[in-house]
Amino acid sequence: MSFFQHEHPYRVCYADTDQMGYMYYGNYARLYEIGRVEALRSIGFPYKKLEESGIMMPVYEMKTRYLKPARYDEVITIRTSIRQAPAARIVFHFELVNEGGILLNTGEVTLVFVNIQTNRPVLAPAELLAKLQSSFTVNE
Amino acid sequence: MSFFQHEHPYRVCYADTDQMGYMYYGNYARLYEIGRVEALRSIGFPYKKLEESGIMMPVYEMKTRYLKPARYDEVITIRTSIRQAPAARIVFHFELVNEGGILLNTGEVTLVFVNIQTNRPVLAPAELLAKLQSSFTVNE
Amino acid sequence: MSFFQHEHPYRVCYADTDQMGYMYYGNYARLYEIGRVEALRSIGFPYKKLEESGIMMPVYEMKTRYLKPARYDEVITIRTSIRQAPAARIVFHFELVNEGGILLNTGEVTLVFVNIQTNRPVLAPAELLAKLQSSFTVNE
Amino acid sequence: MSFFQHEHPYRVCYADTDQMGYMYYGNYARLYEIGRVEALRSIGFPYKKLEESGIMMPVYEMKTRYLKPARYDEVITIRTSIRQAPAARIVFHFELVNEGGILLNTGEVTLVFVNIQTNRPVLAPAELLAKLQSSFTVNE
Repeated sequence: MSFFQHEHPYRVCYADTDQMGYMYYGNYARLYEIGRVEALRSIGFPYKKLEESGIMMPVYEMKTRYLKPARYDEVITIRTSIRQAPAARIVFHFELVNEGGILLNTGEVTLVFVNIQTNRPVLAPAELLAKLQSSFTVNE
Repeated sequence: MSFFQHEHPYRVCYADTDQMGYMYYGNYARLYEIGRVEALRSIGFPYKKLEESGIMMPVYEMKTRYLKPARYDEVITIRTSIRQAPAARIVFHFELVNEGGILLNTGEVTLVFVNIQTNRPVLAPAELLAKLQSSFTVNE
Repeated sequence: MSFFQHEHPYRVCYADTDQMGYMYYGNYARLYEIGRVEALRSIGFPYKKLEESGIMMPVYEMKTRYLKPARYDEVITIRTSIRQAPAARIVFHFELVNEGGILLNTGEVTLVFVNIQTNRPVLAPAELLAKLQSSFTVNE
Repeated sequence: MSFFQHEHPYRVCYADTDQMGYMYYGNYARLYEIGRVEALRSIGFPYKKLEESGIMMPVYEMKTRYLKPARYDEVITIRTSIRQAPAARIVFHFELVNEGGILLNTGEVTLVFVNIQTNRPVLAPAELLAKLQSSFTVNE
């Protein structure tokens, strides 16, 4: 299986917690957002430039599984991977791991490419495909 | 199929939007939370009382599909349903519908019952089962 | 002193709380937003229409004092008042009161009127002034 | 004037923005939280340890002035300073500056020290005072 993987740290703050003492279940989406944006930036494809070029990427689907709670002040590693070349859609996979190496959460977010002017779906930009292709690694 | 269903209105505010002009994809979790808490309140089972009785309900899984954007100032109807009697887990289904009757989003959230003292999973409280049972309607 | 006053209920949800068990201090801004938007709606001046007419109201200043914690599931009354006719700026005053009538929080938010096209400050629309004037009550 | 100052970077994400295309005015409180927690960490006084020692620091007051909008994907420098030795209260001052060196926002947050067991106010811990004192610099 070939795939692209990227890691980014995130420290859980008070704003993220709820009265259960854990990160609120709705706030993981923020970590996924940071994970995928930093993953794209790492291959020279900042999302902001994509929007400036007239394409936006609204989220179509999110699935998330809360295995263990993320707690206040922990530094979480957001492990982002892309396992398939994007076409009309791009799927990001996420694993959130705490400082002790414990897997806390897994997620999967599917986004689509939309032309901002026409508001219609388009294919993944060729430049993104090229940059991902050269980053993909073959593990046999 | 028998199930319990409840509806609750929610007005999208500026805090919910992002620069795409839509409700941010991470904020739907708040609507699901409000939907299920109000659904339980409507059958005389406020979540706050459950916590006070020593049981909390952390979220185990969430799946959500963004069909159409929810926009600023729209009043969204949060349609919450329970399709199966809960045991170790309870699954809530959500449909978010705008003022024009358009289905914007579907979601599914699975929660577990946990004893706050022991931090171990427990079965759904008998009182909740009884209240749901009497609310379940048979549609044949 | 003459002023306009409006009240709107808000139920504190889990998303609003933090691990201290209170509403997170950053989330009061959401209540102020809801308070002022509903106050304007009550006099027939929905903020969304203002934006559609080409004027937006960015926030210039916020001051807030946290007197007592707002707790999960409490219904807070957001009491919004305008104490002076707006010109280049409009100042909203807020009092948040819980179900027991206890004052939890006071706030003051100053917004400016900005032309969306030119991005320059403008005066309060005449229509807003007229609607506020007819709502102002004289208490002598 | 003697004071302690610390800087921490923060990248504005989509979750922070609203449909005006700026960071939502309620989200600055998160940056202030991160700023003060990292400032205390930098002098060897992590807030989490303070809570574990039985003292929490609820916010008493916040004042904030929005001078220019913070925009998506900008890296904001959170400049946190303490200008007076804390006693019953501690006051943090904030300046948010963008990559171009433009001052976007100023803030002031006052917190109190509270004993978690008794829920009563206490004085700033001696250890915090000592650590701040040794960090304070005299500029004459």
